[in-house]
Amino acid sequence: MRTVDEHRARILGTAAPLPVETIPLDRARGRVLASDIRSRWPVPLFDNSGMDGYAVHGADATVGAELRVVADVPAGSSLDPALGPGQAARIMTGAPVPTDADAVIPLEHTDLGTEVRADAPDRITVTTAPRPGAHIRRAGEDAEAGSVTVAAGTVLGPWQLSSAASAGHDTVDVHRSPRVAVVSTGSELIAPSARPVRGQIPESNSVLLAAAVASAGAEVVAVHTVADDKAALVTVLDGLDVDVVVLSGGASVGAFDVVKAVLDRTGSIEFGPVSMQPGKPQGFGVGDDGALYFCLPGNPVSVAVSFEMFVRPALLALAGRSDVDRPRVTRRAAVGWRTPPGRTQVLPVVLDDTTVRPATSGGSGSHLVSSLAVAQALAIVPADVERVGEGASVEVMVLT
Amino acid sequence: MRTVDEHRARILGTAAPLPVETIPLDRARGRVLASDIRSRWPVPLFDNSGMDGYAVHGADATVGAELRVVADVPAGSSLDPALGPGQAARIMTGAPVPTDADAVIPLEHTDLGTEVRADAPDRITVTTAPRPGAHIRRAGEDAEAGSVTVAAGTVLGPWQLSSAASAGHDTVDVHRSPRVAVVSTGSELIAPSARPVRGQIPESNSVLLAAAVASAGAEVVAVHTVADDKAALVTVLDGLDVDVVVLSGGASVGAFDVVKAVLDRTGSIEFGPVSMQPGKPQGFGVGDDGALYFCLPGNPVSVAVSFEMFVRPALLALAGRSDVDRPRVTRRAAVGWRTPPGRTQVLPVVLDDTTVRPATSGGSGSHLVSSLAVAQALAIVPADVERVGEGASVEVMVLT
Repeated sequence: MRTVDEHRARILGTAAPLPVETIPLDRARGRVLASDIRSRWPVPLFDNSGMDGYAVHGADATVGAELRVVADVPAGSSLDPALGPGQAARIMTGAPVPTDADAVIPLEHTDLGTEVRADAPDRITVTTAPRPGAHIRRAGEDAEAGSVTVAAGTVLGPWQLSSAASAGHDTVDVHRSPRVAVVSTGSELIAPSARPVRGQIPESNSVLLAAAVASAGAEVVAVHTVADDKAALVTVLDGLDVDVVVLSGGASVGAFDVVKAVLDRTGSIEFGPVSMQPGKPQGFGVGDDGALYFCLPGNPVSVAVSFEMFVRPALLALAGRSDVDRPRVTRRAAVGWRTPPGRTQVLPVVLDDTTVRPATSGGSGSHLVSSLAVAQALAIVPADVERVGEGASVEVMVLT
Repeated sequence: MRTVDEHRARILGTAAPLPVETIPLDRARGRVLASDIRSRWPVPLFDNSGMDGYAVHGADATVGAELRVVADVPAGSSLDPALGPGQAARIMTGAPVPTDADAVIPLEHTDLGTEVRADAPDRITVTTAPRPGAHIRRAGEDAEAGSVTVAAGTVLGPWQLSSAASAGHDTVDVHRSPRVAVVSTGSELIAPSARPVRGQIPESNSVLLAAAVASAGAEVVAVHTVADDKAALVTVLDGLDVDVVVLSGGASVGAFDVVKAVLDRTGSIEFGPVSMQPGKPQGFGVGDDGALYFCLPGNPVSVAVSFEMFVRPALLALAGRSDVDRPRVTRRAAVGWRTPPGRTQVLPVVLDDTTVRPATSGGSGSHLVSSLAVAQALAIVPADVERVGEGASVEVMVLT
């Protein structure tokens, strides 16, 4: 029986970053940068004002000095007015500081204050003298031309995208996002809105998996529910054109486990137990079509746990991320609970700032889908622990 | 001058949850549930098997007993075969346990083991006796019919959606997601791919804001860049039909601050300083059209900070979330830095497990957009602190 770590290692060994594509910034949120972004120019591009005020010769701008305002430099202006002795230019935040000036006096450091005027005044009187260089943002002080402003491997959030735009780029090179198909199997499955008869169960795994795939930043391109029928499953699988197929159900030793019957030993796909509870029956490998196939057990909690432990890390690795693990924290067990001997327990739990407890009073049953709704995290209890004692330290994977 | 808390309180006072809509589960990820989900039936629906194996009379199934297999109950079957003394039914995981049975023996606890057979065998010999009730999941043990399985106010993630499906629902009542317009203003702004001349700056704020709005789960329905021209801005604003407008630039005291000129005192919109650094000039209020207007300063770091402190909490509140704040942690300052007297400092920072440091060596300049790319979090330093000493304890807002 493989350990959790062995199964993960096998999976991550196959999950190389997908090819690179060049896409516009407004589609790149959450993607992983594939090549360094270098600034096309110095940032800022030119010495500019950090305040609305007046560009001056600092030496002239003593308290009480009257300066003549000879120019007006709004934001966006390309003006570079000459400033003689005792002269100033009105200037707005972000506008280029005239070459002749060496300081900016904020509006409120003059006699005229911050009252808004359409036109620049003729004269101002300095009420607070500027320090040398005051309120001038120097060209290149944020980034030099050609310098790397966002490094390859970075996950592109709002701040990184903004930085890329400032560096002169409206596209970025990123790894392609995994295209994923979700396939639920089981002749017992019916639509949630239907009225079940004895033996039938509302289909919930595809809902869980599609939302989980999307939450991992991957693209759900197909969702299917298939009965336990080999021909029907083959037809569905043959119609897919994806990077990853996530199946649930039919992966165990049952006589009707069609996923195993159809996929075992195609490509590198292998089925076998993993020493985890829930989620022991697992199939994984690269199919004949080059896609990664995850064949998960059918119970909802097993699906939730298997996704977090095996599928999500692979989706992130395919997307080019180097850190594929969720953060883990340590909490004290608020109550004791039993764990399966020799298997890693992955238990839906409820957390507060200091403690952790099982999300259900019913224990770790893999069918407790209603209870899953109140869980916030997964406790990871090592295989060699047989019982978590009240007050024991427990490692918890946080699902933020 | 308003404090940060006063400005936030004014904003959150206007941000009531948006109306409720009913949408399919596969579109509901990240939405906030507006009414309790109650299970249409007991979960599980019927006593079912937790294993692939044989449903038996437990009293008959002593070690060495030979049982006659008189029926085969696959998943999805509605069969309820009668079982006489010494009789068993082959049963698959999830299939309904016959009324006459009171335990399930897993395949591997019989002489025939787990070899897959198309048809049920005629006879099995018990190798391990079941406990009473073994491997039977009782109807309703996860949730009773009519019980609340997901409570109003819950953010719907994969697990909650799966639970809703199991409870018999293919739609959910959720608060509408805020529809947001992003408007960058400034005559200095050009497309990032253009070649700037003196005075021009690549437009990056709309990229930042659009990605940040989407990251908050809201819907970006319009993105505009407008020069400092009142008529042009009015035309853009008149064309919007949204819940929230986020503008950047033109909110301060400059002569060309058109956002203030156009929006001040329309509806409840007010402009004025907030004691925060960066991000002091702020405008906010409900416009004549009923939308919330956020008028942020134009510097990129000010935009990033203002979004996190003011806009994001409002977007979450509109979406129906009660907890609108990001998690905060405490770290030790790895270096000392200065803070503005009398203003709350919100500083982009880099973290490790124990320490925090400014993301830039250049300090807290609101124009340092390149440096923003390496920041992972925002340090929040209270207004009454004038200097963060090396080793001091600092509160940090984590942007996960």
